[in-house]
Amino acid sequence: MATAGKVIKCKAAVAWEAGKPLSIEEVEVAPPQAMEVRVKILYTALCHTDVYFWEAKGQTPVFPRILGHEAGGIVESVGEGVTELVPGDHVLPVFTGECKDCAHCKSEESNLCDLLRINVDRGVMIGDGQSRFTINGKPIFHFVGTSTFSEYTVIHVGCLAKINPEAPLDKVCVLSCGISTGLGATLNVAKPKKGSTVAIFGLGAVGLAVSDTAMEGAKMAGASRIIGVDLNPEKYEQAKKFGCTDFVNPKDHTKPVQEVLVEMTNGGVDRAVECTGNVNAMISAFECVHDGWGVAVLVGVPHKEAVFKTHPMNFLNERTLKGTFFGNYKPRTDLPEVVEMYMRKELEVEKFITHSVPFSQINTAFDLMLKGEGLRCVMRMGE
Amino acid sequence: MATAGKVIKCKAAVAWEAGKPLSIEEVEVAPPQAMEVRVKILYTALCHTDVYFWEAKGQTPVFPRILGHEAGGIVESVGEGVTELVPGDHVLPVFTGECKDCAHCKSEESNLCDLLRINVDRGVMIGDGQSRFTINGKPIFHFVGTSTFSEYTVIHVGCLAKINPEAPLDKVCVLSCGISTGLGATLNVAKPKKGSTVAIFGLGAVGLAVSDTAMEGAKMAGASRIIGVDLNPEKYEQAKKFGCTDFVNPKDHTKPVQEVLVEMTNGGVDRAVECTGNVNAMISAFECVHDGWGVAVLVGVPHKEAVFKTHPMNFLNERTLKGTFFGNYKPRTDLPEVVEMYMRKELEVEKFITHSVPFSQINTAFDLMLKGEGLRCVMRMGE
Repeated sequence: MATAGKVIKCKAAVAWEAGKPLSIEEVEVAPPQAMEVRVKILYTALCHTDVYFWEAKGQTPVFPRILGHEAGGIVESVGEGVTELVPGDHVLPVFTGECKDCAHCKSEESNLCDLLRINVDRGVMIGDGQSRFTINGKPIFHFVGTSTFSEYTVIHVGCLAKINPEAPLDKVCVLSCGISTGLGATLNVAKPKKGSTVAIFGLGAVGLAVSDTAMEGAKMAGASRIIGVDLNPEKYEQAKKFGCTDFVNPKDHTKPVQEVLVEMTNGGVDRAVECTGNVNAMISAFECVHDGWGVAVLVGVPHKEAVFKTHPMNFLNERTLKGTFFGNYKPRTDLPEVVEMYMRKELEVEKFITHSVPFSQINTAFDLMLKGEGLRCVMRMGE
Repeated sequence: MATAGKVIKCKAAVAWEAGKPLSIEEVEVAPPQAMEVRVKILYTALCHTDVYFWEAKGQTPVFPRILGHEAGGIVESVGEGVTELVPGDHVLPVFTGECKDCAHCKSEESNLCDLLRINVDRGVMIGDGQSRFTINGKPIFHFVGTSTFSEYTVIHVGCLAKINPEAPLDKVCVLSCGISTGLGATLNVAKPKKGSTVAIFGLGAVGLAVSDTAMEGAKMAGASRIIGVDLNPEKYEQAKKFGCTDFVNPKDHTKPVQEVLVEMTNGGVDRAVECTGNVNAMISAFECVHDGWGVAVLVGVPHKEAVFKTHPMNFLNERTLKGTFFGNYKPRTDLPEVVEMYMRKELEVEKFITHSVPFSQINTAFDLMLKGEGLRCVMRMGE
């Protein structure tokens, strides 16, 4: 590669300060250091988490910063010690990593890598504590180790899933975050059985798509009844496209929604997946599962001061409560197989991609997300 | 059988009122009705639950009553509709049942039979709402469908496990309650892996043996470190016999015991089993398991007003909390195999049986339990 070892100048969307429109700038992208990879991003999508840290409400503000974490690209060059990837490999960057060496990576069950677990406050590479992005020599901060709102970006090798080069990156780019989170929550953690009943709390949270993909996972697993629970009845129409068969609005009832669900399912649902992060919804999701075998899975991220409360007999009666992060997928080990599920047509991603714009119109993608229009907007780099 | 269809007169230990010594009386035991079996009890052990309902503190008092639920016997005769058992079969009575017909029995995961789930307030047979025990024609109440403190008792067929006739009933009788509860909590629910670390909260609760059998299960599963947690340091000595390798007394520390456990295990234990029923111990047991893969299992029965509280991020970080009842064993389906584990010498029961007395000395067994001496006292019927 003619560019290997050299600084690359390219376009990136820079967030200069909280809540202000991004601006497309020419940035310098330094070569990858030890265990790092420089990736040419071809497609990146906007996820709610990008907007969340761009707004930086109640978060540590880290600016100027290059956001972006749901994307697909091609390896441009690799740093010292990188043996698993070579230039030309197709990759999905992931906001959390897999070092393959810590206790979590060595455990079959965990994807909470000690070294590369998501860190939303860190704006630099973990190797040397520096940024690889500069504008006129001044550093621009990274975001969750990915910063995909740039034509080129530098990523730790542990945060890159090498995928089938035949997979269309404009489609599978959305598998690197939201879709996998919801899908994994049902397929890997809730594991509903064929013919079972699944309740999904929180439909179509803005741009997150987690509830839709959780429903998609329930449908793929063979659940025959998928009950959406939301305070907004308008959400039901869209949820139907993802397999939602029943709808319950807690506002329509005087009794707690868990009691409504227990009654309408003859004792409780088999599985519940909580996508809102609201602690009362979490409690309802747990208390609506059937005794003897019910499993509730928490996906939505709670408020810092939230307290989960329930009577312990609810556990003693053989209910299970667990939470998941990124659908329990290990980024490098498991994401390539999620891409293969798409290639085998077992998983449809097209219906999650409601918009596509040139990268230069990235602020349009932010507007759509803020208005709650559509699910995923994919941006075409180089346009 | 010469006795089939006739009333049998035999000895039983009757609890006439709460907390008063039992008295051995001659009782009449009516023939079994539809779906019932009359069993000749050969050995019965005393379990803490018998004492609990004999004391009847905070419980609905149901007297006069024949207590007892941990036992082994032989079928004397069967009622109409009973096809799975014939006179002469060796059986273990169980305080909870398995009808094989309800949603729970049909589920692979649940043992909370809708029809025969434990009911501590009912003192009669479920078929006709009558007692099968009388003294001079006056009914004496049953206890949890078993009432094994009688030379003969009548039990619903769904509460009887048919076992290997070669199994010594004086030993395997203790498998029908306490040992299976603790053993199943680890083997069936916590499922520790080989080489893992397991914390057991509450050692040697008086006569319950649950913590000891939970430790036994952890050892059988190959756990390499078994940490006992108890407020009484004297419990450590006995717990060592059941595999306890470390001991933590919450009183020895100023910080919460979950933090102590997390520190001494480099991030948390792999599995925790809570045997006390104290809600603070439950919270500690959950919060001391490792993120990514830790599982906490609740066994101890909580106070009616208890509230389990934790920060929901503890779940989101991939911890699991579940509860179990009777170690998730289905009485008829699974107990025969537990007996086989004993027959194959994979499970030792002798060390749980610390005393043996003639049935006529049943009050001695109560005294031992109240003084906290030993684990199980087996009573020899007919002596």
